[in-house]
Amino acid sequence: MVTVSDLYAMDFEPRAIRKDIIGDLSNPEVFNYGVETYEAYKKKSLASDIIDEQKKVREADLVIFQFPLYWFSVPAILKGWMDRVLCQGFAFDIPEFFYNSGFLKDKLALLSVTTGGTAELYTKAGVSGDFRYFLWPLQHGTLHFCGFKVLAPQLSFAPEFVSEEERKGMVASWAQRLKTVWEEEPIPCMPSWYFGQ
Amino acid sequence: MVTVSDLYAMDFEPRAIRKDIIGDLSNPEVFNYGVETYEAYKKKSLASDIIDEQKKVREADLVIFQFPLYWFSVPAILKGWMDRVLCQGFAFDIPEFFYNSGFLKDKLALLSVTTGGTAELYTKAGVSGDFRYFLWPLQHGTLHFCGFKVLAPQLSFAPEFVSEEERKGMVASWAQRLKTVWEEEPIPCMPSWYFGQ
Repeated sequence: MVTVSDLYAMDFEPRAIRKDIIGDLSNPEVFNYGVETYEAYKKKSLASDIIDEQKKVREADLVIFQFPLYWFSVPAILKGWMDRVLCQGFAFDIPEFFYNSGFLKDKLALLSVTTGGTAELYTKAGVSGDFRYFLWPLQHGTLHFCGFKVLAPQLSFAPEFVSEEERKGMVASWAQRLKTVWEEEPIPCMPSWYFGQ
Repeated sequence: MVTVSDLYAMDFEPRAIRKDIIGDLSNPEVFNYGVETYEAYKKKSLASDIIDEQKKVREADLVIFQFPLYWFSVPAILKGWMDRVLCQGFAFDIPEFFYNSGFLKDKLALLSVTTGGTAELYTKAGVSGDFRYFLWPLQHGTLHFCGFKVLAPQLSFAPEFVSEEERKGMVASWAQRLKTVWEEEPIPCMPSWYFGQ
């Protein structure tokens, strides 16, 4: 489980920085974060917070991401987790190991999202468009890219604004779902799921 | 111009944190970042780095975001700029001032993106899907939500991997475009632009 509140409790670093590589750079003249973290991953010289998170992912069969929707996406602290933890060599490799062949292909992932806006806003007819539209970069562009099989998202709309009873209902249905989550089939992670035909 | 390299040079804070509000919280029992920054904006008690960035936006007619695509989106440091700078009260208000009525509606915005992958990957037939798909959360869900009129994105595909000549061509065409950027019409920021019909 990767939750925004845990990342805050850890004061997790979201920035992709030079300090993520311990020791010398492979090219000190031009700092290329992707190249350097790829090399550092292979040499086991990534910063320890990245290594710790990669270990948790390696041991997980299912990774649940719990976050409030910020600007149709994850809050920056969780974006930083994705930017830093899911590095080349660990989560994927080019040109062979990505999407269906990504290194995390034997794992499941699930986005559990709370929103500010109501469900009606996130429909094809609503001003914010179908909620599947904003899931594309996260589910397809990130998780599926790394090989993850993606389970249907858990969306809790506007928990701040609904009644206490509805809020309890949201938690109860999420808890109920988790009991049998292992029996679920992944979604088909292709454009038609997101955008229709 | 908001560039990832400038944000790194400033060591910009991407995390949405308690310190973004100077002084007392309006509800110290339950910390709600959105509520507290909205109140702090009105009381002019936001952290000075946020106030500085809001001032730049306020003075701009066109805001260009220059960034490398990380996981189909902006790097965390720029996501943090969006999360922290574009707060309620400054960029939008609910339930009246968002999308076409957002507070930044007299401004233009433009995303200038460099990618790792080639242009062929980011087509309807390519494994990464049409590039417009990943622009939805940024252009529609963020910029247009705040009222910005969005100009066509400037996409520079795989500058790392093309020839020096092609790289120079990318820079030249970007420079050429900027000469007449004020004459451009915004894109129609609606689902059909992103996903076809």
